[in-house]
Amino acid sequence: MQTIQQHFQVAYSYSIYFTRNLFEESNPLLRSFFEALHEPGFRRKALVVVDAGLLPHYPELPDAITSYFSTFSSHVHLVPDILLVPGGEQAKNDPALFDQLVRAVDEHGIDRHSFVIAIGGGAMLDLVGYAAAVSHRGVKHIRIPTTVLSQNDSGVGVKNGINYHGKKNFLGTFAPPVAVFNDLTFLESLDDRDWRAGISEAIKVALIKDRTFFAWIEANAEALARRDSAPMEYLIHRCAEMHTEHIRSGDPFEFGSSRPLDFGHWAAHKLEYLTDFSIRHGEAVAIGIALDSVYSTQSGLLPAAELERILTVFHTLGFELYHPKLSENDKLNLRNGLQEFREHLGGQLTIMLLERIGKGVEVHHMDTDVIASAVDYLQALYPSFAS
Amino acid sequence: MQTIQQHFQVAYSYSIYFTRNLFEESNPLLRSFFEALHEPGFRRKALVVVDAGLLPHYPELPDAITSYFSTFSSHVHLVPDILLVPGGEQAKNDPALFDQLVRAVDEHGIDRHSFVIAIGGGAMLDLVGYAAAVSHRGVKHIRIPTTVLSQNDSGVGVKNGINYHGKKNFLGTFAPPVAVFNDLTFLESLDDRDWRAGISEAIKVALIKDRTFFAWIEANAEALARRDSAPMEYLIHRCAEMHTEHIRSGDPFEFGSSRPLDFGHWAAHKLEYLTDFSIRHGEAVAIGIALDSVYSTQSGLLPAAELERILTVFHTLGFELYHPKLSENDKLNLRNGLQEFREHLGGQLTIMLLERIGKGVEVHHMDTDVIASAVDYLQALYPSFAS
Ligand SMILES: NC(=O)c1ccc[n+]([C@@H]2O[C@H](COP(=O)([O-])OP(=O)(O)OC[C@H]3O[C@@H](n4cnc5c(N)ncnc54)[C@H](O)[C@@H]3O)[C@@H](O)[C@H]2O)c1
Ligand SMILES: NC(=O)c1ccc[n+]([C@@H]2O[C@H](COP(=O)([O-])OP(=O)(O)OC[C@H]3O[C@@H](n4cnc5c(N)ncnc54)[C@H](O)[C@@H]3O)[C@@H](O)[C@H]2O)c1
Ligand SMILES: [Zn+2]
Ligand SMILES: [Zn+2]
Repeated sequence: MQTIQQHFQVAYSYSIYFTRNLFEESNPLLRSFFEALHEPGFRRKALVVVDAGLLPHYPELPDAITSYFSTFSSHVHLVPDILLVPGGEQAKNDPALFDQLVRAVDEHGIDRHSFVIAIGGGAMLDLVGYAAAVSHRGVKHIRIPTTVLSQNDSGVGVKNGINYHGKKNFLGTFAPPVAVFNDLTFLESLDDRDWRAGISEAIKVALIKDRTFFAWIEANAEALARRDSAPMEYLIHRCAEMHTEHIRSGDPFEFGSSRPLDFGHWAAHKLEYLTDFSIRHGEAVAIGIALDSVYSTQSGLLPAAELERILTVFHTLGFELYHPKLSENDKLNLRNGLQEFREHLGGQLTIMLLERIGKGVEVHHMDTDVIASAVDYLQALYPSFAS
Repeated sequence: MQTIQQHFQVAYSYSIYFTRNLFEESNPLLRSFFEALHEPGFRRKALVVVDAGLLPHYPELPDAITSYFSTFSSHVHLVPDILLVPGGEQAKNDPALFDQLVRAVDEHGIDRHSFVIAIGGGAMLDLVGYAAAVSHRGVKHIRIPTTVLSQNDSGVGVKNGINYHGKKNFLGTFAPPVAVFNDLTFLESLDDRDWRAGISEAIKVALIKDRTFFAWIEANAEALARRDSAPMEYLIHRCAEMHTEHIRSGDPFEFGSSRPLDFGHWAAHKLEYLTDFSIRHGEAVAIGIALDSVYSTQSGLLPAAELERILTVFHTLGFELYHPKLSENDKLNLRNGLQEFREHLGGQLTIMLLERIGKGVEVHHMDTDVIASAVDYLQALYPSFAS
C-alpha cells in the first residue's frame, strides 16, 4: 500500500518588550498585551510564579502584581495564590518543584488558553517553562526575566529544561513563550556576580558574529563594570536581538548537529558540574570562551593580538578566567566534558572556534594536548588562583 | 527600547509506511530507512521498547528484532536490552514507567541523533513518545503501531501523553515521529474488541469529512466484522490518510480551540473514566459518536434517516452503543464531562456535531436536556444493557 507522506510547518511568533516598573499601575504594557488578546465573554486565567530570590529585594512584588492585575480583572482572572519557587540551580535539581507546578496548573484549572507567568532568573524560568510546556501538552507561557543572563539570552529563546539524576537539562522541550517582558529595573538588585555573569553571553555572540558589537563592549567595559545602566541596557537589547535573529534564521529546534551559540559551552557545562554549581553559568561561560579562544590561537586559527583583546575585555569586566577544577585529575575531568557534550548533542562532534573576532568557525575535532596547554596558559595568567 | 519581534516556522516531515512482517530479514523497508540516513563514520543508536502484551502472541519478536538489526549493525547500534513495558492504559498511569524509559535513554547514551523505537498499542506509544520527546529536549522517535486504533489514528499523529493524578493525557507534548511503520500482520493477534474498537475512529473521520468513505464502511461492515484483512487494510490506510491530511492542513499543534477530530470524544473521555478504563478508547468513541449523532438529530441538525445509517453501521460491526454509566447519577456524571472537555481544551466550548453524513458542524453550546434525552434514546435501543 502506498506510503503516506506527512509534511507541515508550525509557525511561532512572540515579542520581547523592554520596559521599567512593569507592575506599576501607570505602565500599560502588560495590560495592553492581555487586552489585545481578549475575546468577549471569555476570561482567561493567569498563574504567576515568582523566583523566591527576588523577595528580599522586592518584598512588595506579590502585592504589586495583585493590584496590577486587579485593573483588568474582567479580562484576566489572576489565580490569587502567587507561587514562589527557589531561585538558582536548585530550582532545576528538585523534581518535587516540577510536580508542584504541574499540580498547580491542574488545581487552578489553567487550560491551553490560560497563562503561566514566570518572573525570575534563568534557572526558575527553565523549570516553569518546562512545567508549562508539558501540562495539557503546552499552556501559554510568559517570561519576565530578572537577570542579565535571562534577559539577553535564556529568557528570550525557545528552550526550557530541568536537571535529571545529575545531568544538566536532561529533561526539557523546545517551547517558545507567547511573550517576554524585560523589566530593566530588576537588574539593580542583582549582586555583582550576576550582573557580570550575563555579560559573557553577549561577548559570546559578538565573538562569533559581530566584530562591531565586540568593539562596543570593549569601549564600554569599564562602564559596565561600574554598573552603569545605560550601556547594560544596550548590551542586553543587542544580545537579545542577535540571539533571536540566530534562532529565526537557523535551526530553531536544533534538529541538526551545529550549535554555534554553544561556543565556549562544552567546557562551561563541565565546569558547572565540577564546581557543583558554585560558579554561575555566565562565569563558567567566560572561562569556556577564554579556553576555546586560547585553543583557537594555539591551533593557529586566531591571531594572538585578537586573543589579547578577548582576554582583556573579560579582565576589565572582572571575570576570573581560570578555575583549579580545569586542571584536576590531569585535566581528564575537563576533557571528559567534550565527550559528554557530543553525546548530549548527538551526531558528529561540532565545536565552534574563532578565526577572528566576529567570525566563528566549526571544527569536528579538538586535540587533547592543545586543550591541556590552553588550560596551562590560563592558569599561568591567573597565578593567584592556582591551588 | 524597541520591541524585538520573533517569528519563525519549524518544518516537520515523516512517512507512514505500510508493510507486513517488518522484521523478516527479506523485508528491506526498515533497513533501507536507516541506510538512507546513514552518514559515513557515524553509527547511530537505537533503543527498542516493546508492548509486553505482544509477547504471548509473538514470543520470538525480541529475537527477530535483534537478528534483523544485526544485518546492518555497521550503520545502527541496537541497544542489546530490548525494553518491555506493559500494554494498555496502565502504561500511561504509572509514572515509574516514564522514569524507567528516561533512565534507559540516559544509561544507553541515546542522543538527539539516535532513535527510540516503540512497538505496540496506542497507550504504550503515547508513553514512549512522551519520554522520547522530553529526553534531551527530544530524541528521534519511530512508531510501530500494532493495533487498529494506533495504525489508523493515534500512532500516525503528532501527540503523546501520560495520565497524571487521574487526569487523562494531562502531561504530554506535540512531537511528530520521524517515521511510522504500520505492520499489518500484527493485527491478526488482536482480540475481537481491539480489532473492532479502532474502526470507530475511521467512522468518525468519515462522518465529519467523507460521505463516500462512510458508504464504503457500510458496504464492508460485515466483512470487517468477520475480520477480513483486505477491507481492514483499506480502512486503516484511508483513515490514516485523512487523519494526517487533517493535521497538515489545519492546526497541527492545536493552538486554536477547534478540534474537529474530537467528534464524539467529550463523552468518550468521560466514559473511559467512569468505567475505570474497562472499556477501550475506541469502544467509548463509538458510544460518544452515537450520542452526539442522536443529539444532532434531536436538535434538528441531522436527518433521522442519516442517524439510522450511523447506528446501523455500528450495530453491524458489533459495537454496543449504550453503557449504564451514561445514566448514572441522573446523567450528571456524564454531563460533567462537557465542562472537563472545555477545560482541557481551554477557551470557548467547541463541539463538533453532524449536519449530515460527511459534514460536521461546530457548535458552542450543548443543551443538557437534549443530552439526557439522547442518552435515554440509546438506552432504549439496547435494553439488554440497562442495569
Ligand atoms: N533555556 C536556555 O536557553 C538557557 C540558556 C542559558 C542558560 N540557561 C540556564 O539559566 C540558568 C542561569 O540563569 P541566571 O544566570 O539567570 O541565574 P539564576 O536563575 O541561577 O539566578 C541566580 C540568582 O539570582 C537570583 N535573582 C534572580 N533575579 C534577581 C534580581 N533581579 N535581583 C537579585 N537576585 C536575583 C536568583 O534567586 C538566584 O539566587 C542556568 O540554569 C542555565 O542552564 C538556560
Ligand atoms: N496520541 C494520540 O493522538 C491518541 C489518539 C487516540 C487514542 N490515543 C490513546 O491510545 C490508547 C488506546 O490505544 P489502543 O486502542 O491501541 O489500545 P492499547 O494500547 O490500550 O492496547 C490494548 C491492548 O492490546 C494489546 N496489544 C497491542 N497490540 C496487540 C496485538 N497486535 N495483538 C494482541 N494484543 C495487542 C496491548 O498490550 C493492550 O493490552 C489510549 O490511551 C488513548 O488515549 C492516543
Ligand atoms: Zn549559555
Ligand atoms: Zn480517539
